[in-house]
Amino acid sequence: MSTYRVTFLPEGKEVEVEENITLMQAAEKAGVYINTLCGGKGVCGKCRVQVTDGKVLADKHSIGFLSKEELMEGYVLACQTKVSSDMEVVIPPESRLEAEQILMEGTVVDYSQPAKVFVSKVPSDPLSLFEPLVQKIYLELKEPSSEDNIADSDRVIRELRKKTEYQTFERSLRCLRDLASELRSNNWKVTATIAKHGDLWRILQIEPGDTSEQNYGLALDVGTTTVVAQLVHLKSGNVLGVAGSHNLQSHYGEDVISRMVFACSREGGLNPLHEAIIKDINNLIKSLTDDKGIGVEQITAIVAAGNTTMSHLLLGLVPCSIRLDPYVPTAHAFPQIRAAELGININPEGILETVADVASYVGGDIVSGILACGIADRQEVKALIDVGTNGEIAMGNNDWMVCCSASAGPAFEGGGIGCGMRATLGAIEKVEITNGRVEYHTIGKAKPRGICGSGLIDAVYELVRNGIIGQEGKFNRSTKHERVIERDDEPQFIVAYSHETETGKDISVTESDISNLVRSKGAVFAAIKSLIDYVGLGFDQIDTFFVAGGFGSYLNIPKAIAIGLLPDIDPKRIQFVGNSSLMGARMSLLSTHAFERTAKIASMMTNIELSTYLPFMDEYVAALFLPHTDRKLFPSVDYKH
Amino acid sequence: MSTYRVTFLPEGKEVEVEENITLMQAAEKAGVYINTLCGGKGVCGKCRVQVTDGKVLADKHSIGFLSKEELMEGYVLACQTKVSSDMEVVIPPESRLEAEQILMEGTVVDYSQPAKVFVSKVPSDPLSLFEPLVQKIYLELKEPSSEDNIADSDRVIRELRKKTEYQTFERSLRCLRDLASELRSNNWKVTATIAKHGDLWRILQIEPGDTSEQNYGLALDVGTTTVVAQLVHLKSGNVLGVAGSHNLQSHYGEDVISRMVFACSREGGLNPLHEAIIKDINNLIKSLTDDKGIGVEQITAIVAAGNTTMSHLLLGLVPCSIRLDPYVPTAHAFPQIRAAELGININPEGILETVADVASYVGGDIVSGILACGIADRQEVKALIDVGTNGEIAMGNNDWMVCCSASAGPAFEGGGIGCGMRATLGAIEKVEITNGRVEYHTIGKAKPRGICGSGLIDAVYELVRNGIIGQEGKFNRSTKHERVIERDDEPQFIVAYSHETETGKDISVTESDISNLVRSKGAVFAAIKSLIDYVGLGFDQIDTFFVAGGFGSYLNIPKAIAIGLLPDIDPKRIQFVGNSSLMGARMSLLSTHAFERTAKIASMMTNIELSTYLPFMDEYVAALFLPHTDRKLFPSVDYKH
Repeated sequence: MSTYRVTFLPEGKEVEVEENITLMQAAEKAGVYINTLCGGKGVCGKCRVQVTDGKVLADKHSIGFLSKEELMEGYVLACQTKVSSDMEVVIPPESRLEAEQILMEGTVVDYSQPAKVFVSKVPSDPLSLFEPLVQKIYLELKEPSSEDNIADSDRVIRELRKKTEYQTFERSLRCLRDLASELRSNNWKVTATIAKHGDLWRILQIEPGDTSEQNYGLALDVGTTTVVAQLVHLKSGNVLGVAGSHNLQSHYGEDVISRMVFACSREGGLNPLHEAIIKDINNLIKSLTDDKGIGVEQITAIVAAGNTTMSHLLLGLVPCSIRLDPYVPTAHAFPQIRAAELGININPEGILETVADVASYVGGDIVSGILACGIADRQEVKALIDVGTNGEIAMGNNDWMVCCSASAGPAFEGGGIGCGMRATLGAIEKVEITNGRVEYHTIGKAKPRGICGSGLIDAVYELVRNGIIGQEGKFNRSTKHERVIERDDEPQFIVAYSHETETGKDISVTESDISNLVRSKGAVFAAIKSLIDYVGLGFDQIDTFFVAGGFGSYLNIPKAIAIGLLPDIDPKRIQFVGNSSLMGARMSLLSTHAFERTAKIASMMTNIELSTYLPFMDEYVAALFLPHTDRKLFPSVDYKH
Repeated sequence: MSTYRVTFLPEGKEVEVEENITLMQAAEKAGVYINTLCGGKGVCGKCRVQVTDGKVLADKHSIGFLSKEELMEGYVLACQTKVSSDMEVVIPPESRLEAEQILMEGTVVDYSQPAKVFVSKVPSDPLSLFEPLVQKIYLELKEPSSEDNIADSDRVIRELRKKTEYQTFERSLRCLRDLASELRSNNWKVTATIAKHGDLWRILQIEPGDTSEQNYGLALDVGTTTVVAQLVHLKSGNVLGVAGSHNLQSHYGEDVISRMVFACSREGGLNPLHEAIIKDINNLIKSLTDDKGIGVEQITAIVAAGNTTMSHLLLGLVPCSIRLDPYVPTAHAFPQIRAAELGININPEGILETVADVASYVGGDIVSGILACGIADRQEVKALIDVGTNGEIAMGNNDWMVCCSASAGPAFEGGGIGCGMRATLGAIEKVEITNGRVEYHTIGKAKPRGICGSGLIDAVYELVRNGIIGQEGKFNRSTKHERVIERDDEPQFIVAYSHETETGKDISVTESDISNLVRSKGAVFAAIKSLIDYVGLGFDQIDTFFVAGGFGSYLNIPKAIAIGLLPDIDPKRIQFVGNSSLMGARMSLLSTHAFERTAKIASMMTNIELSTYLPFMDEYVAALFLPHTDRKLFPSVDYKH
């Protein structure tokens, strides 16, 4: 089999690849990220690249996504084009997947000084009781004598009982193996690593001397798009660092559905997805530990939170039935395992706990978020909304919890939107139209490359407010604006002209973009409304709405209310919490009580399956208006024309 | 490195070996067993062989063990002679280690129909409550629907709860991995294998269809000399077969002390000992399963009982501190492990439980025996005596238990006795002297090759009774008997003349043999007496004395009493129980209650360390007489001259 050299511009990254693999795969191998929404099926057209040197085989898939001029200039879809010669390929700006601003931490409670939060020993607030899942206890043992000749492991346990006040310990075979020599060659001074396992503590390892300071844990948010890891010093609770990366599974599909399809439509399809996430995690661990000069074997615990599909893919569990009616996963609760069993590169005895899921589309990330926001610990009713491709909503208090998820479509993440993109460098994230004049802001103040979810919400709000579109989302034929044009038989509003943009093309919002957004916000609002009606409450009775996820942090709350995405309540009662999943994972790592609470939250939660819940469809249809067909629901919203 | 061919006669087994390995190692490789007591250190002289062809390097070790004539005839010590040419080697009868009659089962209770014993569901007799440690439960699950869409693993557990009435189940990652596909591709009809683990049941595997009949367990008695395995059908409790073999560790030392010395006196010394016992077990498993046409993966559970050193070597735990003051093992209680972790060839998820030990020289075999004899379950005080190189004695009832061990020396197993041998083919096991005429019986009715422990006891008893030796164990110079001769400056009694024997040499009992036996029986009796005095009881208050181990089954009880080995009580109250360790292991396999009882027995038992217990030494000295210096202790014994 021949091999060819492919060079990716503008980075100039080169890679040697075998004949007939796709340019997408070559890019993956070269460490170059190319945009994709469909996972390489040739149906989203987001991965267009320009071949500037080398042979291009006729590619009928590209037709329809590329204009005649583009085809002449060598544009192809990277996922559909096979390497058949040495090639030079330019990745245009709109096809690049730049590092998103990955949400590292939330804002509800200031956990930036976790040691202060977690040193409380007041049992009345169990979640803040500092008690890491894995602890290293330094022991100075009394040497055996004929009066005191209990077995070595009993001696260790006797001292552990004294030092920790825990009663029940389990010996692992591994830690027993060399125990006798370890104790004797280290003058009976050793450090025991113990991990909470159900109702007891398992002794993971015995190390010479006092290593109790060298004990680290990893809080992991395994998102569909991004994976974020936080390195925590388990003895003090201090956060030492945080790192994020794209979920490498993106190469096999953009969203959970396409990844499940990939995993389940071929023999062994699960393996590359499982391996991709493990690789991600190992990369993050390497970067965090290299940074701090910490050995990976000093990491003894991981708590991972992710949606149900991510949990399954992380643990290598067959995910296929999750997406098929009646939406049944393999498990909601997961066993504690050794992280090394999955190939995760920490201490070989180090544990991995996975936060329990609730249902096929309400995962451990939501449970972790509820923990972090303290929703299940207080009497007031609070709600958590995580808006992405799926909108997940949970609501309740210390007595009851309900949740649901609604397929919002990819509009909030820039999918299905002509000039849409993720909230990354160059995305238009804010738009204002004043007296016909347009002002916009981009992420990183870069030249605009597209428009992201929050930018789109702004734009639509401004278009309605300025009477350019009507409340049903259609362009107002009677209102003239120089930026409103008709192209490809569709009316659209130009937000940024071609000369201003990185791509050299107009960035505009079309009528079908608006329609996509309206459907997305309609689904989310209908889900919130259905859940509130289900429990018989009104919006006013919800003490706080927490908004989680990457989308939330760029959102303008009054505008989100004005288009009817969020309910019309006092904006002060709406709080962005950022990555509450990560926050909950860290709390779990540092408090066995908090971790045990996640299992309780997951099991106390009632999931409302919206696809079979009749009132939802009516709510959805009613919400396909800006802000809503029922004006009484949005008393404060008043578009002035 | 050159290789040579060594042929062992009379079997004619050939083996190709590398230069410079010893004849003992060559024999091991050829599968030929040569006697050894010292583990190849050249100090016991038991491994003499005759080189009939090939080069013999000068071997100063042999001198002292071999006469000049023997040296001229090519006799050498196999453990000290290296291979330096092709060789032909004759193993004389006294150096052959024939298959001993391995004790397979005991006699206390008739467990030959275990199904009948174990079907009781009467909670008042928990030990007989049939509840195997590992069970296979056939499940016909309801297919998920939108009304009933709990996770797959929850569905399995819900049905397990219904079928078993157990409440708490633990999922293993392995069994979750393919659960979704397993269930769906088998029409929701599967068999779950569950194992008791602490307070809960762990799901080990899910198999297609109904395999609940194919569930087998192994009861293992890991003895220093022999390893015995019993194959049990876990669903019915029926014993399907039993097999025994020599403990291959014998090549590294005959007794626990020499094996610990081997393990601890060189780098990696533990490995060959650990591997030897695993090899033994795998051989037994193969032979049992081949025999019954059962796949090894259908064995899901093993319960192993052995002395403390054997438990450590089985699990690969460093045993070195067991033999050093203050005699501290790594552990008394052992974790449940997967047998596959040790390389034991059963179902990869199959469990191994090791019966808990009490002290460095009172092991799980004794605990298992106490379970089997029901000592800890009744109000009457009973005792268990296991006589071998170590004599272990335990005593008590359902309220208290005490135990001790005394080093009896190897005399009962034929060690340290001029013509001594184990109770194997050709061993003189019974001796009677009537009117000066000698009659003897050998095991297997073969030509005599030596004398074993029970034969020696008989001989000594008869010698005293006939006035040939006195009660202090010395030959009576005034009594003349044609068989009493003086050879090598030592008086001795010829039991079998050279023309009657397989070896062509006289088999005699010397004064120092008698002295060795008196010390051995003195140590055992002193231990029994010390223990009884310690708890403030008299012999009459002991309801039953159980005698366990290979030694017991050939023993003549009245003669054992008459020489002062066993206490002078009604012989009906002394019962041989054979391999009670194996019996207890099987009970544990078939009843979680019985297995849990072993842990309780081990922890309730008080071990009296005789080496630091002052009264013991006085008792020992007092017992160095036939039967005892205190005639009141043996009122029924009356040697008539």
